[in-house]
Amino acid sequence: MSNGARHSSRIVPQKLREYGTLVRTELQRYLPHREPRRYLYDLIADYPQRGGKMMRPSLCIATARAFGANLEEALGSAIAIELMHNALLIHDDIEDESEERRGRPTLHMLHGVPLAINAGDLLSLLSLRPLMDNMSMLGPELALRILEETDLMARETAEGQALELGWRQENSTALTTSDYLEMVLKKTCWLATIYPIRVGALIGTRGQADLDAFFRFGFFLGASFQIQDDLLNLARDDGRYGKERGGDLWEGKRTLMLIHLLQHLEADDRVRLCSILSTKREERSAKDVGWIHKTMVDRGSIAYARQIANRLAGVALHEFGMLFSDLEDSPDKRFLEEIVPWVIARDLN
Amino acid sequence: MSNGARHSSRIVPQKLREYGTLVRTELQRYLPHREPRRYLYDLIADYPQRGGKMMRPSLCIATARAFGANLEEALGSAIAIELMHNALLIHDDIEDESEERRGRPTLHMLHGVPLAINAGDLLSLLSLRPLMDNMSMLGPELALRILEETDLMARETAEGQALELGWRQENSTALTTSDYLEMVLKKTCWLATIYPIRVGALIGTRGQADLDAFFRFGFFLGASFQIQDDLLNLARDDGRYGKERGGDLWEGKRTLMLIHLLQHLEADDRVRLCSILSTKREERSAKDVGWIHKTMVDRGSIAYARQIANRLAGVALHEFGMLFSDLEDSPDKRFLEEIVPWVIARDLN
Repeated sequence: MSNGARHSSRIVPQKLREYGTLVRTELQRYLPHREPRRYLYDLIADYPQRGGKMMRPSLCIATARAFGANLEEALGSAIAIELMHNALLIHDDIEDESEERRGRPTLHMLHGVPLAINAGDLLSLLSLRPLMDNMSMLGPELALRILEETDLMARETAEGQALELGWRQENSTALTTSDYLEMVLKKTCWLATIYPIRVGALIGTRGQADLDAFFRFGFFLGASFQIQDDLLNLARDDGRYGKERGGDLWEGKRTLMLIHLLQHLEADDRVRLCSILSTKREERSAKDVGWIHKTMVDRGSIAYARQIANRLAGVALHEFGMLFSDLEDSPDKRFLEEIVPWVIARDLN
Repeated sequence: MSNGARHSSRIVPQKLREYGTLVRTELQRYLPHREPRRYLYDLIADYPQRGGKMMRPSLCIATARAFGANLEEALGSAIAIELMHNALLIHDDIEDESEERRGRPTLHMLHGVPLAINAGDLLSLLSLRPLMDNMSMLGPELALRILEETDLMARETAEGQALELGWRQENSTALTTSDYLEMVLKKTCWLATIYPIRVGALIGTRGQADLDAFFRFGFFLGASFQIQDDLLNLARDDGRYGKERGGDLWEGKRTLMLIHLLQHLEADDRVRLCSILSTKREERSAKDVGWIHKTMVDRGSIAYARQIANRLAGVALHEFGMLFSDLEDSPDKRFLEEIVPWVIARDLN
């Protein structure tokens, strides 16, 4: 990214902070503060307090406001999105056997798998409460449209998660870029970008939006976001190959880089890679993982992923223009435009 | 139970079969038949196909019809209840490390924990779809009341599950009958009886029912149901102490019998029991488990639990009279009356 682009995207951190702080405060209303705290409600309140980028709820509010809604009309849905995201993180961390989340031990590391599963279950269902409250704020028809979008998003997300887990469990090695993009569309984009933007558009246009066009904007934005996330995970390795820093290689996660590498290795090297992937996580060595990383650099897998992320972001900007160029200028509209370069320019942290 | 009581309760198996078959068939409409089957949709379809008593959806339909609703008006909610129940079973089996469910390996034994957690998550959210469809069938106001009941039930159920898991995880040994009944109220009764009956009453009375009274009927019925379930689990031991037959003792589950025993053992025997409970499940021996079972018989713990179950069923019948005696006689009304002795007379199977 040029310095110019970095400069112009100041609106992104600003809006993320503004909407993020608001949503993080207001979602407390939906977290019961009662017994049993130690086995349940303390667990549910944990992840939402740990921070996070707050991109998902901010996309929802900004889209709604860019189309003329006021903040209050979008707030409940934004809270629901953030709660759902945190609920999914709890279960994802168990499914991926992750040990750290946002700099602290994962919930199941702190409280055991059974209580963490149960906490994720409840947080997921609690997230629907603000969507029920939409009934009185937005009327039953629009509230029901949003619930139906939620149903669709939940299915897509579970399908994407199933694909990724299934590939890893069966050690799939014959995957293509297209398989990857389908998985990411489902696993990441629906909850991270498509659903927040579509729900925001429904609220902003009082149900008149053409949701297909918002689907495309959300997909291209979300896919470039996920590839950048995977690149950052890899970059955090920084030669130390810690199990949590750069955990994707240890997990054998089917990233675009790994899929590219599987397609471009030949003979002995491919056999070696497949053999490493077929071992259990705890049996992989730092040497194996280091070799995969180095080979990804050598074979251009990282450059390839970066190129695809850039192209997807370019298409997202085009879709942004189609959707938003007729609207009058506003900080929310600028946020939605600037977030496209922002997702692929995010630094290591 | 006398033969007379057994005879008169023929209406119970008959209605369970009638409504159970209907619900099991109709819920298929809510299970997507698409890819990815092997990693997701086959898993989701598994438990609902394995059978089960179908008590929960039948209670909902029967209550609605006893108050004058027609079957179609209650069907969606009954389907939702059965789907939620199956979703919870998937996660409960992981949390309890159960190996068998309805005579077959549990879902996570067949497909691994990660895919089973993900399948449970989606099944839980899919169960809300028929409740959204209630909007057009019952109108937005009544549909929203049912969604709010669902929210309440979800919280109570998660609290009960958290209590039970927490007690086991911390090896709590100072519990009372009252602790047990509070846990069972939350963990079992809300989803098994209170929620189905209250939702049925809301549908049957078009939202006019006094839900507090239905809460009491549901609680007394559900608590006697759970105690009988625990007694049956124990009876299935039949001297062999298999890990799945009579699994509660192996799991250290805080049943009323175990709580009674903990209160009535002294000195060395109590130390021995607490010490067995403090070991991990896989470290317990058949000898330990056999000793607990025999001591429960000797100290009257089983007789005590049976007595409490009978008393709770008596109060449930009283509550039934208060709620239903003014309604005209119908097979549904008789089902709701006869199900009270039925839950405590269920045989081993």
